[in-house]
Formats: sequence, C-alpha cells, structure tokens
Amino acid sequence: MSSASADEIRIIGIAGIPEVRPGDNLGGIISDAIRQQPAGMSSGEVLVIAQKIVSKAEGKVVRLSQVRPSKVSAEWAKRYGKDPRVVEVALGESVRIVRMDRGVLISETRHGFVCANAGVDISNVEEGYVTLLPDDPDESARRLRQSLRDELGADVAVIVSDTFGRPWREGLVNIALGVAGLDPLIDLRGKPDWKGQPLRVTVMAAADELASAAELVMGKASGVPAALIKGYRYESAVEQSGRALIRPPEMDLFR
Amino acid sequence: MSSASADEIRIIGIAGIPEVRPGDNLGGIISDAIRQQPAGMSSGEVLVIAQKIVSKAEGKVVRLSQVRPSKVSAEWAKRYGKDPRVVEVALGESVRIVRMDRGVLISETRHGFVCANAGVDISNVEEGYVTLLPDDPDESARRLRQSLRDELGADVAVIVSDTFGRPWREGLVNIALGVAGLDPLIDLRGKPDWKGQPLRVTVMAAADELASAAELVMGKASGVPAALIKGYRYESAVEQSGRALIRPPEMDLFR
Repeated sequence: MSSASADEIRIIGIAGIPEVRPGDNLGGIISDAIRQQPAGMSSGEVLVIAQKIVSKAEGKVVRLSQVRPSKVSAEWAKRYGKDPRVVEVALGESVRIVRMDRGVLISETRHGFVCANAGVDISNVEEGYVTLLPDDPDESARRLRQSLRDELGADVAVIVSDTFGRPWREGLVNIALGVAGLDPLIDLRGKPDWKGQPLRVTVMAAADELASAAELVMGKASGVPAALIKGYRYESAVEQSGRALIRPPEMDLFR
Repeated sequence: MSSASADEIRIIGIAGIPEVRPGDNLGGIISDAIRQQPAGMSSGEVLVIAQKIVSKAEGKVVRLSQVRPSKVSAEWAKRYGKDPRVVEVALGESVRIVRMDRGVLISETRHGFVCANAGVDISNVEEGYVTLLPDDPDESARRLRQSLRDELGADVAVIVSDTFGRPWREGLVNIALGVAGLDPLIDLRGKPDWKGQPLRVTVMAAADELASAAELVMGKASGVPAALIKGYRYESAVEQSGRALIRPPEMDLFR
C-alpha cells in the first residue's frame, strides 16, 4: 500500500462582506473582504459567490408594489397561498413553463436555466423586494474575475452560484450559474479508470460540485455570501461558460 | 466591516486504498489507509466513500457471462450500441422505468433512487463484470461508521456516495446514497435570513453537497475512492437515512 498523500482542498467562507446595494462595486467589496482573510487569495484558486449579491450589485431587484399581477398569476397564487406579485415576476422571467402544479412553478429562464420561480427570490432582500437572476451570469463572473485580478493581482476562477432544487431528490444544492476562468465540465471519456479501462460516459460537472462545496461554508442563513476554494487543480479556460452546464434541449429527456 | 473569520472546511483524499474484493473487511482497509494520513481522523468529521468499493466488498458484483438478455434488452441494446447483458442487469435492478429512450435508461431502483442504468456500472471493475448498488446503503454506512469507531476510536459520520446525472443539467455530480451519523437535510425553514426575515422554503441537501465536495478530490479516474471532510459542523443524528434525500412520490412532479 502506498502512503502517498492525495489532494487536499480547503474551502474558506469569506466573512465581513457588507450589505450590497445596486451600483456597488462588487469587485472592490469582495477584494476588501479577501484582504481581511488570514489566508488571502492566490492565482489558481476559485472564488464562489452567491447570485444574490451579484444581482443586488447589478440592480436586478424588483419592488413588488410596482408589480400588477395578471389574472393567471392572481388565481394561481390565491389557490396555493403565494404572493401573486412574486408569481407575476417569476412568470415574466420565464420563457417556458416546465411544471406549474401543487404550488410549485418550475420554468425555463431566458438563460436556459430550469429552476423554481425562474430564480426570483424573496429571501435575503429587503422586505417588499425580490431579486432576479443576473442578465448574464458568465459576464458577471468575468467582470468579478477581472476586478480581482486588478485589485489583488491574482488570476482566479469565479463561479456565480445559486441554490436549485432537483427532480427526484429532496433539498436544494448550490449549482454554478456563471463561470469564468475554468472549464465547468471535466470530460473523462476515454481516460482510463482505476483498472486501466476507458471510462465511457463520464463527464463530471465540476463547477456545480465546486458550488456545492462552497455552500457548506456559505449557507443561506449565515451571512457568508462567498467562499474561496484553495487546492483544487483545474485547467484555466478563458472562454468558458456556465451555459455548458445546461443540457441542450435535444439531449434533454425531460423537456 | 467585521474581519471575523468564517468556517473553513478541509477535504482530504484518502490515498493508498488497495483493490477491494468481495468479502474484504472494508472498515479495516479504510482504517489502515486513514492511519497513513498525516492528518488522521477525529470525531465529528465526515468520511465519504464511493459506492463502488462498498459494492465490491459486499459482493454486489455480477459476471456478465452468466447473464442471459431478454428480447427487450437485446433489441434495445442493439439499437443503441449497448451491451445487452448490462441492459438486462439494469432492468433487473429496476422497479420502474422513468425513461428508456435514445440509448438512455433512467429507472427507479428498489431503494427508490432514480438514476441511469439503476446504478449498474461497468467502470472501475474487472472486465466482464458489473457492480450493483449496495442492498442497503444506509446499513453499509452504519457498518463502516461502527468499524471506524472500533478501529480508530473516532465517532464520525459516513456517506456512501455515487455519481448521478440530473435532468436539465450536463455532467454528473456525486450524491449521497447512504448516510450514517448526520442529518442529510438541513432544514432552514423559519430560520432568519441575513435580513432577519424567515427563510420560507429552504431545506439544503447537505449530504449531497458533502458528497459533491468529496468528489473534487476523489475523481472517477484517480484511484482515490474515499475522502475525509474536516471542519464541517453538523448535528450528530444516529437514526438518519439517505432515504430522506429521495423525494416522496406524492411530492415528485416528475414521477
């Protein structure tokens, strides 16, 4: 038996990030918080940031008092005890309804994400407001990546994450909405398995797993909206996109 | 701005685990490998172990030369270039077919898992064999947990993991099949969000996120079938089950 040590990854929650408001310089705020971290940040690491504060900085916030629910939103909301204005905003963010049953609205957003309420969220935002998903989460990730390079001199990968539900399984997990600087998928097809035989169909959704790992220190309730991942080796990839994690419609048995 | 440091989690791949064979004492093998780890293992940590070596130790291995494909297995396999014996084994492990189209078989296992090929896998096993899922992954996790306590004196949580695909998203992620010693779901309903408002519908699938985090150091191709997670705070829960992560049929919009 070999006693060779395997990889070790560290996941560090970034505390001390203040409330973010529309127009705030998110890159500056995150850089300041990272400067307070004993471990700092170095090139080759991964920053995972919650969609919520990205959306706030980008002004993707809707005041519910300005929303006029349609009849369908009003009736469905009433039937299931929902806020009709939130339903209205969620329908407006949707390009296709996947399921709308038993109080659950699952739809496809204009980005192609399939998720509950089209990513419209009432938690961790001022009362009377909801947040929407960023217009282009990859662009959000790229901007933040560039900011971190400018402010801290570190070339890192950035993942904009959100919590999504899944069919068949209980509970939410963090997934990657937007990605900059790393390949979100690791294609092991043709690589040998432990036995030297080729792995046939294995493509790992590494960016989703990184987002899930980060959630373990972030948490919805903990006020830690970002995490740093150290020790995860990845191939730098400039032209990558979280869209690679969206299954193409023609390959989607559940469309 | 506070400079309080947040949580830090370490994920350490356990190298040096030899090939596992039916009847092997898995607890002893894992304990030996952990003893070689500089960081060791302490109470309150989490061990994630790949289903594959659990299944092998438990003898959940089928020799394909002894499988006689039915007509439906043979025809479907021929149409999509699959091995008809693997299809036959997968159908035999299924209690319900969810989708069987375009060369993809998604079914429900007798445990209630919905996954490709009912968890039947040809990778990382001797040529001419396939592995099946453990009969009771929770029991597998409990046994290993007890072994680790006996061998190393550490009271840890154990997750038996597997790589599953997901509807709508590309790539596989690690999920928790079996769980012992921790609550697989973290119920945040009613807890305050950052703004002090109650989080309404948030239940996090923590065990799935731990499994995904572990995969980042395990990898399908790397020969590291287990990982240790240090620094993740959880409430010990003796009577828990990976079944809590399976959405009940009556709540499943995709059944």
